[in-house]
Amino acid sequence: MHNWTTLSKNELEELREQLEKTYAGYISQNLKLDMSRGKPAGTQLDITNGILDALDNYITEDGTDARNYGVLDGLPEAKKLFSDLLGIPTSQIIIGGNSSLNLMYDSMMRLYVFGTQGHLPWCKQGPVKFLCPSPGYDRHFAICEDLGIEMLNVPMTEEGPDMDFVEELVKKDASIKGIWCVPLYSNPQGICYSEETVKRLANMEVAAPDFRIFWDNAYGVHPVYKEEKLADIFEAAEKAGNEDRIYYFFSTSKITFPGAGVSLMAASTKNIAEIKKHLTIQTIGHDKLNQLRTVRYFKDAAGIHHHMEKLAAELRPKFDIVLETLERELGDTGLATWTKPMGGYFVALDTLEGCAKETVELAKKAGVVLTGAGATYPYGKDPKDTNIRLAPTYPTVDELTLAMELFCVCVKLAGVNKLLKEA
Amino acid sequence: MHNWTTLSKNELEELREQLEKTYAGYISQNLKLDMSRGKPAGTQLDITNGILDALDNYITEDGTDARNYGVLDGLPEAKKLFSDLLGIPTSQIIIGGNSSLNLMYDSMMRLYVFGTQGHLPWCKQGPVKFLCPSPGYDRHFAICEDLGIEMLNVPMTEEGPDMDFVEELVKKDASIKGIWCVPLYSNPQGICYSEETVKRLANMEVAAPDFRIFWDNAYGVHPVYKEEKLADIFEAAEKAGNEDRIYYFFSTSKITFPGAGVSLMAASTKNIAEIKKHLTIQTIGHDKLNQLRTVRYFKDAAGIHHHMEKLAAELRPKFDIVLETLERELGDTGLATWTKPMGGYFVALDTLEGCAKETVELAKKAGVVLTGAGATYPYGKDPKDTNIRLAPTYPTVDELTLAMELFCVCVKLAGVNKLLKEA
Repeated sequence: MHNWTTLSKNELEELREQLEKTYAGYISQNLKLDMSRGKPAGTQLDITNGILDALDNYITEDGTDARNYGVLDGLPEAKKLFSDLLGIPTSQIIIGGNSSLNLMYDSMMRLYVFGTQGHLPWCKQGPVKFLCPSPGYDRHFAICEDLGIEMLNVPMTEEGPDMDFVEELVKKDASIKGIWCVPLYSNPQGICYSEETVKRLANMEVAAPDFRIFWDNAYGVHPVYKEEKLADIFEAAEKAGNEDRIYYFFSTSKITFPGAGVSLMAASTKNIAEIKKHLTIQTIGHDKLNQLRTVRYFKDAAGIHHHMEKLAAELRPKFDIVLETLERELGDTGLATWTKPMGGYFVALDTLEGCAKETVELAKKAGVVLTGAGATYPYGKDPKDTNIRLAPTYPTVDELTLAMELFCVCVKLAGVNKLLKEA
Repeated sequence: MHNWTTLSKNELEELREQLEKTYAGYISQNLKLDMSRGKPAGTQLDITNGILDALDNYITEDGTDARNYGVLDGLPEAKKLFSDLLGIPTSQIIIGGNSSLNLMYDSMMRLYVFGTQGHLPWCKQGPVKFLCPSPGYDRHFAICEDLGIEMLNVPMTEEGPDMDFVEELVKKDASIKGIWCVPLYSNPQGICYSEETVKRLANMEVAAPDFRIFWDNAYGVHPVYKEEKLADIFEAAEKAGNEDRIYYFFSTSKITFPGAGVSLMAASTKNIAEIKKHLTIQTIGHDKLNQLRTVRYFKDAAGIHHHMEKLAAELRPKFDIVLETLERELGDTGLATWTKPMGGYFVALDTLEGCAKETVELAKKAGVVLTGAGATYPYGKDPKDTNIRLAPTYPTVDELTLAMELFCVCVKLAGVNKLLKEA
């Protein structure tokens, strides 16, 4: 089949008729499939069940009773584990509760209410803006929206955010206070920031002295096909004298259990001291038994990497289905383009302009729930209505096969409808 | 020995000489004892070790996989357990992470940043004040201090906060936005709010339409000698049409493990809806496996009450030592008064005016760390320098016996020093 965008009206009408029949066939199957969120499947979680019995005792290496109060910023052995895994000194790490999103939200709240390093709180600086490389993670954008922080779209390139665009904005506008980044296997495109991008983010001239990069390394050790290297943002920022610019986040939500993992935040020692000043008011400490459970289960960084290979083996067939179905069904139609991520949790597809919403709606009517069209953009508004996030991890292989076939029918149907409207 | 305050200078000097010898004897023992915080002892925590193996599986009653993402406000069975325990409808409960302090801090942050029920955020209302019944819990006061909320001391009576005093203030000053309450076995005095006090708090006329009672029922099921009844604040507030006034907090920190318990917040359905609107931005959900562990271990509210009897049996000998030593050593000296709590975690002692700091300092020099003098008052400033919080739970019975004997020597020495200065 040739590129559909060059077909005649008659050919398109014929195609539409066929597609509508196929689509009706799916409708009659009463499907109920969910590809909307980056949730691991039960079978994936089973791989980690051993962690539930990993807590052989509750005394830490330094003799602390992990059942009791105390240790605000995390057990030394938990810091050590993640320090080795991520190459960040233990002195720059705070271990949190079960959610890195919570750490990000709280960090934003502190900046908003207290400010940082002597600068005025953001709530007292008048309107404040944030850069949002898009498509991106909807929950990042929701934090800004909750606080009334104005979001500015930043286009993505194959190397990360468009740095020419970013540099131009931040150097002249002091009300731009930060940028959201998922630097490795980005959500939703699976893009890995190049060394050059990391360097430019660390070095760029910013008008706001209280500018912060929210570095959400959510998929930092999550290859599916190939382990990509991420340049060390702290090293680059330190060299540039900008080490206070970085707030780094990580969690084991997609390493152990999404509902019961361990999160962490890392920052310059100056920032860590500032954060702990407020953190010690907010809590006496996070769940140390769960920290200990995690340490005892993995033992060391190599233990986590080995574990991630098992998870990758579980995920690979699912990513294969998505990518193979897209290639087979849409490969030469000209109706869509998509990314081929080496890891992470998502595949991002772009339809013809103005077709994403209709595609998602068609899939929904046939019983397949996708991430809402627009969700990957600030305010839920995809300016060209093209981007759809595919989350292949939760359904079974059989469900996913069916869902992806239906999805491609929907992409085609929405695409043909558009072409016919314009024909 | 008669009341020391009526002794002659010579008699006091003789006493001082004896006391200094006794004190020197303690110094030479190089003690290292900690009575500073309300921490359970290891032996108390051992009683609950069964919870570590209580998670037989991870599927909830409604079929949810507790390992995975989701369920923002807590598992239905966890809500049910605490609903039965506390007499609060499940629809008014949100289950949190491991720390109710964290829930209080976050609640205050939301009021400060977003306001409540359509009223201006507190950060936009100019200076805001909070009522602090004192002596009280230092970590409550620290939250206000962190946010720059001005704290007003409220005297305590045997029935709770002095309600004449409270009513007079709140009815005329709209900048007074709330009050901290530990209504049962209060920290540090062990006072239980009377039915009348609860009723007046629920009914009182407040100038601020966004006034909130932070009802920290930390010791709600924690009798040591006798189970006291607390009137239902929600029922009273609802009758008065003031149900939005109550923010209720609770946790299992002192039921299971302080470092790894389960917290909850309860409020009117209108408030719960408002809180969840922001909570859903802050996190995807708290640790559901730990919720499930807690439910499986206790099974029902009766299970918790039964468990609390075991903890009370563990704590009673320690409270006995504190109260018996105080009575024996200070009973008729006129140098101190103290409370005799029926439950909770503390005994509060008042020295002669201006003697608390010196007493704590003397104990510290002899190796016994007490809660800092003043810590039980806003800004750490006890206006009369009399209050000392005794936390008997952490030391062993032997350690506590020794520590209490030394403590009484310190109270006497500081008291005699004061009397001699005035003689």
